[in-house]
Formats: sequence, structure tokens, C-alpha cells
Amino acid sequence: MPQKRPLILVTNDDGINAPGIRTLIKIMNTLGDVCVVAPDSPQSGMGHAITINDTLYCNKITVAKGSPQIEFSCSGTPVDCVKIAVNEILKRKPDLCVSGINHGSNSSINVIYSGTMSAAVEAGTQGIPSIGFSLLDYSLEADFDPTIKYVKTIAFQCLKNGLPKGVVLNVNIPKLTENEIKGFKVCRQANAHWEEKFDKRTNPLGQDYYWLTGEFVNEDKGEDTDEWALHNGYVSVVPTQFDLTAHHAIKEINSWDI
Amino acid sequence: MPQKRPLILVTNDDGINAPGIRTLIKIMNTLGDVCVVAPDSPQSGMGHAITINDTLYCNKITVAKGSPQIEFSCSGTPVDCVKIAVNEILKRKPDLCVSGINHGSNSSINVIYSGTMSAAVEAGTQGIPSIGFSLLDYSLEADFDPTIKYVKTIAFQCLKNGLPKGVVLNVNIPKLTENEIKGFKVCRQANAHWEEKFDKRTNPLGQDYYWLTGEFVNEDKGEDTDEWALHNGYVSVVPTQFDLTAHHAIKEINSWDI
Repeated sequence: MPQKRPLILVTNDDGINAPGIRTLIKIMNTLGDVCVVAPDSPQSGMGHAITINDTLYCNKITVAKGSPQIEFSCSGTPVDCVKIAVNEILKRKPDLCVSGINHGSNSSINVIYSGTMSAAVEAGTQGIPSIGFSLLDYSLEADFDPTIKYVKTIAFQCLKNGLPKGVVLNVNIPKLTENEIKGFKVCRQANAHWEEKFDKRTNPLGQDYYWLTGEFVNEDKGEDTDEWALHNGYVSVVPTQFDLTAHHAIKEINSWDI
Repeated sequence: MPQKRPLILVTNDDGINAPGIRTLIKIMNTLGDVCVVAPDSPQSGMGHAITINDTLYCNKITVAKGSPQIEFSCSGTPVDCVKIAVNEILKRKPDLCVSGINHGSNSSINVIYSGTMSAAVEAGTQGIPSIGFSLLDYSLEADFDPTIKYVKTIAFQCLKNGLPKGVVLNVNIPKLTENEIKGFKVCRQANAHWEEKFDKRTNPLGQDYYWLTGEFVNEDKGEDTDEWALHNGYVSVVPTQFDLTAHHAIKEINSWDI
């Protein structure tokens, strides 16, 4: 646990006004000094995108008078928010970065598309203990109250224990009441993928266009996965890394005739 | 090696008219039947972003009359291109997906920001052997001729041997002549990160804005890394995975009081 009151950076991908981040800010205010730097508009599905060919705006705002937290609204992606927070806004490295609470799942393969998790990963690359939180409810009217106890517990433990180097946490919470949730399961990312169906339409100018729609396919029946945990009433906690090296495959590729 | 002539999907993040993808198409035409689905504009730094709140356009185009390849220009991100190619355009699953050749490095931590590599990873999630290629030269006038021999060799080996499940290749090529390049090194992703410096300016309306600029910091002195290989004249080949689970950290997180 940091000696002084912890400094906590809060961000998300649903935008600074989303109910999920408002809940997260409320929880973090009970644990430390909070600085919010979050996108000014929804950035779902932005993955680890950064803004390199365009300008970034980042303005101090007041969402509710008398709030303890400091808030900045940023025109960029979730990863931009973390970069500008750490390198431009904050006077010292935060003790914790939390991202979310996302409106919708970021379990399994969704981790690679998720702006929420990419923000957490970015903070991780900067050496900041970091957690992405998601609730399995896409609705803007989702009830975040049942998440409070679980989010607070894991954030407190992360402040107390730190995280192994190169590791951030991907925490997903099932859409259940607080009492229905059975607790935490530390697990691995389930082996799943998306099968897309493109909805083809024609615009008023006669040009074809598409909407991306898809079906999540989980081919992993393991009981040590995040998908299993969530389907069985647990909060899933996946330690997630940004060293993407498939170490086990180096020997095989080395056997190639290259 | 597939019995019939292989079907090869080609994409990139610099846009369908970039010199890098033109070189890649030329090489792939010597190995199989080529379908190009690539962004209609530069998409560098887009990471694994997908288009979920907007329409996608994808049009058949002819870049040069008489070319053997089929080409589609897509309004979306590199990952969108792969999804629409596999699920809407192609009649069968391709035998290989290649992405690039990127104008600039995607070694080390750059893999997580890279649209080039994210396209390759997306194809990997769909079970397609897949390679991202990058040349360490950001210039639009970069000379891609020295890459030809190396790109062809590794693509041929990938068609012949396949790839382990859940693994794609991140191939970076140093900016050297063909003869100066010493060969391939299969390696791990170097442990590095970006330290950003934001260039703050004021627009004509008196509003502050920023440009993201940064410095790449490699704190990894290992001789088994992609950074070492590239600095020593080798083409780096990093087997890259999209199971992000930090398996080694599960035990430690399980010891938390949660």
C-alpha cells in the first residue's frame, strides 16, 4: 500500500459521461485521490488505437460541483487518454489505473478489441498497476450497484499487493445481484472467436454498404476459463500480459528451412 | 502445402495504394491466387480497432489493368478488412493471410499499436496462418526490393509448414540491402515502451491542443529479442499469440485476500 493517499487514474472507452465510469469514480474516491481522463465520446471497439495523424484536445471539466475528483475530457482514444494523463496532466505516476466499468463483456478474445482493456494495458506498459473492469450488460441503463463491492475489493488488493511486472488484470462481472455473485475466480482467457455476419444494405445513392454484426463462438470447454467463471456466477479475473511472444512456438519456427 | 494453388489474402494498414502492399502483392502473386482487401486510407496506429458504430464500404477496384489479383478497397480498419474478406468476400478460407509490408517498425511493444499486426492477429483468430511484415523505414519512398527474397521465403515456409494454433508471425526487416541482411532470427518481443512527449499548441480559436510524439525506450538488453536481431542485421521473426493470459501470474493473484 502506498504510504500517502494513493493517486488513481480513471478512464474508460464508453466516454466520460457513461454510467459505468461514474460508478468507478465513486468507488475510487473511497480509496484515493482520483484523476479522470476519459474520451469525450464513445470509443468502444477501438482496441489499442492511438491518434498519430490528428490533433488531440484535452480539457478540464466539472461534471458535478463539489466532486472530489479532477476530470479531463479528451478527444482521443482510451489509450491516448492514458498517455496524455501520465505524460502531460499528472504530476507523478499514479499508484493505480482503472478503466471502465465497461458496458458489456471484455472476457475471452474480446480483450483484443476492447478500448477499456487497451487503456489498462497501456498503463501497464508504463509500469502502473492497472485493471480493466467490465459488466456483462451492454445497456446504458445497466445497474452497476452490484459491482461496487467487487470492484472495490480487487482495486484495494491491487493497491496493497501491486501486480507482477508486465501484468494487468481483466476483470469481468456477471449481470447478477450482489448476493447472487459467488465471488472471484482467477482464470485464463477462454479460447473463443467471433464469426461475423455482414448486414449488406444500399444507401440512398445506390451504393452498397455493410454493418458489422457477429456471433461469439466459445469452443473452449475448460472450467478454468473466464467464460466458465462468468457463466457460473463468478467475477472473472484474468492476469493479462502485453508480451505477446508465443515462447512455446520459437522452437518449431526455428526448425523451418529459413 | 495446400494441394491446389494457395489462396492468399493480402491487407495492410498504410492503405491500398501504399508501396509496401504493392510489393507484397507482387511477391504473393508468385505463390498463389491473391485477393487484396485493404483500407482506402492510412490506418497506422489503429491497433485492433473495429467499426461497430458506423457503416463500412467495400468496393472492388482495379489498380492496374491485367493484374492477376482481385482487389477491394475498404473504408474500415485493417481488422475490418480481414473480417469482411473472410466472411463476405472470399468463397473459402484463405490458406495464408499476409499484412504489410508496413512502412516502419512493428517490433517489440509496437505490436500492440500496429494495424498491420492486428490484421494478422485477426486472421489468426479465424484459424488462418498469418504473417505481418514491416520494413524499418517510415518513408513513403522506402525501397522494398531488399525485402522480396525474405518475405517470399518466410511466406513459402508458412504455406508449407502451417503455424501452431493460436500463433501468428511478426516479421520485421532491417533497412539494409539484400546482401547486408544476415538472414532470419526467430526471437522474442523485446521488453520496451514508449515515453510520450506531447507537443502543446494553440489553435486559431485560442484553444489548446496536442500532437502525440514519443520516444521508444528499449530497456531489454537480451540477445534473443527482436530489437537485438534488427540492430544486428537480421530479419526478426516473433511468434505472436492472442491468448494474453499471463499464466505465470495466476498463482500470485490467487494468493490475494479476495
